[in-house]
Amino acid sequence: MELPSRLIEAAVDQMASLPGVGRKTALRLVLHLLNRSDEQVDAFSESFQQMKQGIHACKTCHNLTETAVCSICADPARNDRLICVVEDIRDLLALESTGQYRGQYHVLGGVISPMDGIGPNDLNIDALVTRLENEKTGGDEAALEVIFALPATMEGETTAFYLFRKLASTGVEVTAIARGLAVGEDLQHADEATLVQSLKQRLPYTS
Amino acid sequence: MELPSRLIEAAVDQMASLPGVGRKTALRLVLHLLNRSDEQVDAFSESFQQMKQGIHACKTCHNLTETAVCSICADPARNDRLICVVEDIRDLLALESTGQYRGQYHVLGGVISPMDGIGPNDLNIDALVTRLENEKTGGDEAALEVIFALPATMEGETTAFYLFRKLASTGVEVTAIARGLAVGEDLQHADEATLVQSLKQRLPYTS
Repeated sequence: MELPSRLIEAAVDQMASLPGVGRKTALRLVLHLLNRSDEQVDAFSESFQQMKQGIHACKTCHNLTETAVCSICADPARNDRLICVVEDIRDLLALESTGQYRGQYHVLGGVISPMDGIGPNDLNIDALVTRLENEKTGGDEAALEVIFALPATMEGETTAFYLFRKLASTGVEVTAIARGLAVGEDLQHADEATLVQSLKQRLPYTS
Repeated sequence: MELPSRLIEAAVDQMASLPGVGRKTALRLVLHLLNRSDEQVDAFSESFQQMKQGIHACKTCHNLTETAVCSICADPARNDRLICVVEDIRDLLALESTGQYRGQYHVLGGVISPMDGIGPNDLNIDALVTRLENEKTGGDEAALEVIFALPATMEGETTAFYLFRKLASTGVEVTAIARGLAVGEDLQHADEATLVQSLKQRLPYTS
């Protein structure tokens, strides 16, 4: 579809560069923006520039933050002997929205995926090892636990296995979130691999 | 889901203000933008501002253009006695991409939709009447044909009926694009209203 102007073409190209946005959707969104006022389009555009300029990774856990250290790392009420390893910031937000986890995080920034050309060096893995070693030599004697909260995919499993070997030398306790039947799910609709995991990870029954 | 920064919150709000983009999708897109370079985010943002500043409606047909009159209205090779009325610019682009229509257009900018609070005065209807009257007094004696290429919805039909009565005084010939079985479609999957229309609008068979 040939567009009537190179300015619209450029805007559609930019919108369609977002993941999951095709050119037809991009055109719809761009024409929607054209109907807004100049001020609204400026506010739309500048919000991304301001975000890009103001946001960076927390130097401790790689969560996103406007300050040097993110609000979770800086919170003295949180347990700093408990570090939950997640793939990305959205997983961190999902765990935070439960309101039940009061430890800290480490955001890997992805998972190992040879198909997508993502190797261990593309992730914040060395930073985690360094962080754990610093924690150990920091004088605090309480045991350190690392919780793997990685996706239950081939890539997630690969990453967990790689990390587990990498962390062996640090001597920290390593756990992983449970795999099993989702709350509200029934057995006949669960996949077999999940049922196998739910049997393997069975626990003493408590009412 | 509480976001770790008001800058991200603002960007997600802006992205989610686009039609059909929910907050989860908006967050995914915004985090994708955060991974780009400053220059890429600037190019993304500025494309919409440049478009907004450089694009306006053609004063004749309300197509989008960077100049006073759009390239279709300005093209002397096109038949200016044939005006195709469409709901919006995407419908114009769809017809143009067939490469088979060589007349001109008139973009209404919507259809009459009381449910959405859109009345005739919100559309470029008076401009069409004025345009047709100018064409008639312009000295060209060739008959003027207006083709309704409006959506086959309640709103499209309402708009066509309103326009038809409005144009009666101008004495122009009014036609409408055919309704019927889509190319490649079989009868058993077509809806009944379409089949009724395809029977009503039957034509002498030509091989």
